[in-house]
Amino acid sequence: MKTSAFYHRTESEYAFLYQPDEFVVRLRTAKNDVAQVFLYYGDPFDQREDTQGVSQWHYQTLALNKSLQTQDHQYWEVRLQPTFNRLQYGFVVLGLDQTQIFYGELGCAPVTPTTLQTMGNYFRLPYFHDIDRVPNLDWIHHTVWYQIFPERFANGDPNNDPAEILAWDINNRPGRDSYYGGDLQGILDHLDYLQALGFNGLYLTPIFKANSNHKYDTVDYFEIDPEFGDKRTLKRLIDGAHQRGMKVMLDAVFNHIGDQSTQWQDVLTHQAQSQFKNWFHIHHFPVTYEATANFEVGRHLSYETFAYNPHMPKFNTADPAAAAYLLSVARYWIEQFDIDAWRLDVADEVDHHFWRQFTTLCRSLKPDFYILGEAWHNAGPWLNGPEFSGVMNYQLTDLVTAKFLTKTISNSDFIARLNQATLAYRDQTNELVFNLLGSHDTPRVLTVAQHNLAAVQAAFAFMFCQKGTPCVYYGDEIGMVGGPDPDNRRPMIWQKGQQNQKMQQFMQALIQFKKDYALELAQRPVQWENSEASDLLQFSRPGATNTLQAYFNTSQTPQTLTIDPAATILLSQGGQLNNKTYQLEPDGFVIFRQTK
Amino acid sequence: MKTSAFYHRTESEYAFLYQPDEFVVRLRTAKNDVAQVFLYYGDPFDQREDTQGVSQWHYQTLALNKSLQTQDHQYWEVRLQPTFNRLQYGFVVLGLDQTQIFYGELGCAPVTPTTLQTMGNYFRLPYFHDIDRVPNLDWIHHTVWYQIFPERFANGDPNNDPAEILAWDINNRPGRDSYYGGDLQGILDHLDYLQALGFNGLYLTPIFKANSNHKYDTVDYFEIDPEFGDKRTLKRLIDGAHQRGMKVMLDAVFNHIGDQSTQWQDVLTHQAQSQFKNWFHIHHFPVTYEATANFEVGRHLSYETFAYNPHMPKFNTADPAAAAYLLSVARYWIEQFDIDAWRLDVADEVDHHFWRQFTTLCRSLKPDFYILGEAWHNAGPWLNGPEFSGVMNYQLTDLVTAKFLTKTISNSDFIARLNQATLAYRDQTNELVFNLLGSHDTPRVLTVAQHNLAAVQAAFAFMFCQKGTPCVYYGDEIGMVGGPDPDNRRPMIWQKGQQNQKMQQFMQALIQFKKDYALELAQRPVQWENSEASDLLQFSRPGATNTLQAYFNTSQTPQTLTIDPAATILLSQGGQLNNKTYQLEPDGFVIFRQTK
Repeated sequence: MKTSAFYHRTESEYAFLYQPDEFVVRLRTAKNDVAQVFLYYGDPFDQREDTQGVSQWHYQTLALNKSLQTQDHQYWEVRLQPTFNRLQYGFVVLGLDQTQIFYGELGCAPVTPTTLQTMGNYFRLPYFHDIDRVPNLDWIHHTVWYQIFPERFANGDPNNDPAEILAWDINNRPGRDSYYGGDLQGILDHLDYLQALGFNGLYLTPIFKANSNHKYDTVDYFEIDPEFGDKRTLKRLIDGAHQRGMKVMLDAVFNHIGDQSTQWQDVLTHQAQSQFKNWFHIHHFPVTYEATANFEVGRHLSYETFAYNPHMPKFNTADPAAAAYLLSVARYWIEQFDIDAWRLDVADEVDHHFWRQFTTLCRSLKPDFYILGEAWHNAGPWLNGPEFSGVMNYQLTDLVTAKFLTKTISNSDFIARLNQATLAYRDQTNELVFNLLGSHDTPRVLTVAQHNLAAVQAAFAFMFCQKGTPCVYYGDEIGMVGGPDPDNRRPMIWQKGQQNQKMQQFMQALIQFKKDYALELAQRPVQWENSEASDLLQFSRPGATNTLQAYFNTSQTPQTLTIDPAATILLSQGGQLNNKTYQLEPDGFVIFRQTK
Repeated sequence: MKTSAFYHRTESEYAFLYQPDEFVVRLRTAKNDVAQVFLYYGDPFDQREDTQGVSQWHYQTLALNKSLQTQDHQYWEVRLQPTFNRLQYGFVVLGLDQTQIFYGELGCAPVTPTTLQTMGNYFRLPYFHDIDRVPNLDWIHHTVWYQIFPERFANGDPNNDPAEILAWDINNRPGRDSYYGGDLQGILDHLDYLQALGFNGLYLTPIFKANSNHKYDTVDYFEIDPEFGDKRTLKRLIDGAHQRGMKVMLDAVFNHIGDQSTQWQDVLTHQAQSQFKNWFHIHHFPVTYEATANFEVGRHLSYETFAYNPHMPKFNTADPAAAAYLLSVARYWIEQFDIDAWRLDVADEVDHHFWRQFTTLCRSLKPDFYILGEAWHNAGPWLNGPEFSGVMNYQLTDLVTAKFLTKTISNSDFIARLNQATLAYRDQTNELVFNLLGSHDTPRVLTVAQHNLAAVQAAFAFMFCQKGTPCVYYGDEIGMVGGPDPDNRRPMIWQKGQQNQKMQQFMQALIQFKKDYALELAQRPVQWENSEASDLLQFSRPGATNTLQAYFNTSQTPQTLTIDPAATILLSQGGQLNNKTYQLEPDGFVIFRQTK
């Protein structure tokens, strides 16, 4: 047995409280190496005398289930509802080679009475504390987000238009510095449109005073950008959303500030004498940099910035005054405008010390507040204590893109990698990750798919079937196209004739499906069927009384399936029932419910 | 190559800031499987155009060093001083079987230009933040602790004696409820004794008002137990210690309170109407339990306690009022009495949320405050953020006991397990762990060693050579004996004739050695020589200009060594130079400095 492949870690994604009374334990072993795993567990203080009067630790045993597989590993999992609050546990692993071994905190040991009665051999969860549990957040399961880039969604109030704007015409391609006049009133005007499609979460990219069309270079965190409107309009927008059962998430850019802000301008003016000098990471005065042909790139910067962008000086969030300022921003928009979530820009470059204060504050103001961190890599370190609720799930984006849109990954690799991403987080975090196929930072999905609408629909359907809360980038629901930034930020198409109605109807049905099966999709495990097959991607979400099942044709040819006639087809694309068989076109899929 | 054995984790003991400008990266592989490992690393934003004008990520490479080995694994390590604050990195691993593979966040991949230019493949440390770094604490390196159980150290003031006390006589064995009259004045009276031996850290078990001789059942956290003296005496004791360059650590029992406390008595009186009911974990009212023959064990408890002890109700530290009370205790003794450290009883059964507040408070009052958690298992989860500085290193206790005192473990198993314990923490944590051979909770070392004084001396010498801050339990320096609690708590021997002078002189020399080489012993890596040998335990602590080396004879027969005549012998026991060879008796050891 490859004992060197074993891995377990207490108080992590390998051992966590999922609910106040449910504890999950996972073990990593090598793939195709282990036959069975048993958990030996009990209250560490539960010593009982045996028939000889010798004190023995009282333990119970439980078999782990085969969980997900990755490239090299098989994971095993078991869920406990212990009646005690202190847990001591270890594993007995039976190899396919008929060997058996105990695995615990000190490594491997033979399975003997001495091993099993030596307390130091075991892992220990000394006491369950609900206050330390990574929380669940039920409303997220029922939410489908719509991402709006306000400058491009709709122009509801021509009075606040920038001086020079392009005509609102899809053929008028945006440049990096173009303006079209989109604003908050425009969003308010289209809440009915979004509600009709079923969206019940609005994610707005930054709306605070700034000097660009994207507003990621904040100048004043306490003011709405005048090109977008005013606070009265925002209040009406949020109230309108809430009345429709929609949540609202704003974008907080706390990693850096715009160089036109009073704070940075004060540094430029007063240099080492500036009252704000500790708000930033300044290596030496005077603050300088060498400009390059690219406005966003400086050389020999004497201060830290976002990337090498001299116009986005980085906050020193370890400075108490800077932190207090940003926390007052977080508080203001929750208290005064009742927002439901913050999306945190470049969140993993800001310190944990700050995020813990931030999250503690937000949750004190609104217990079910959702905190979404931007992170392009594994964000495990931000998902343990009171920091992020979830992260933007770009790992899923990349994988679904490679599988469905560019078709550059095999089904087995796709599954192995998706499983690895899943296994990197606790279950409750996987339920709170923010799933997206594209955003203002990536080319439009339909463009990536080379205009293959069926492929885009399959990709969305697959994404909606995963754990996590899905988001659709404005315009993707009507088949908008566009290359990399800035081309992915074209003005929204409002002329019905130019909107892809088929895509819109599909999206409406998909959202309805997600809402109808919200808890099943959020909480049931994912089980892959026949994961080595190259033509069909098959998985199920098994529950106590029924199973949701899905087939995706990932091949170039039609595939024939057998579906139980008693099953209820919930959503399909490119599929057709022929007598007793089900014919699935390339890029087609079918999702059905099978009663047990 | 056994790729399934690979393990790495960002922001953990595998990847951490050691100093503000030094970053440590470790990788786990299978033992005897890998020839070399290289780190590929750089600033993730450092994209440069190649000769064809194609943007490429600019990375550097660095070889990792072979670090420690455990039962199944070889660890690899490298220390970086990057000039940038954002780090992206991955590993290229060369197997002994001549294969090579890239290992990163997504698992293994072939080493190709595409792999190396795919940013998602890498691990990411998005930004170094000193405020999140697990801190170093320099004074700890220079400190040798002395643990005092005040009731048994010295009776300095007969006026505060309990009503019935036993005569201060070593032959008067203590029972579980015995009193001898030890007090704070007694400690104050013997500061010169401790200073002469070289001790410069005092760790006192609890001194607050309580109803037992051990005082772990606190009744009032704001009062000194009257049997131990008063606040004036404590102030004089701490001032006296500080004048002698000694630090003082008090014991905080924050997991539970004594049942005679006002708070618990209020619960017993007012039950569900008690203002303190949320301070505890009460399952239902009235609070009850079924007594057993053992005073410390109850059955069917309707409230949570320490172990099953009905007289030690467990605090609900998630309750804001309970937490505020305990934090005010922490603050009071730091602000009013200038203590230098808190030792936290049953610390791993208290929630992280509380400890973060506690540590943040203590460090705000005294930046170099030391926080020592009691934990009998791996305490990793409490050593990441602002929680404990170090933990009581019982893993070392167990291993040194098995190796030197009971002689029940082979050298290779001993080394493998010690390495595993070391690899479980960051370097700075290993420098801050609290090393002990025994305490008021364990039998006396000399008793465990069956009165083999040489074995005890070797054990202490080995422990003092390890990273971490050593502690000696009162009386062990003069060869006191005693079985399990309460026999390990006999009154201190003050008659010189009854003190083992040889042991005392040995301890004095050992402490001097530890202080002379404080930084070397704290910070240099441990390197095992010939770790498969069964007769000699050999290791070195290599530095830039010299190496500290040690040989311990762990066999039953004398061993002959060759020591460079130019080497300086620093400390030895049972060793003798015969011409050019060095003869080492069983249980003997020699520590010397070799200039490069």
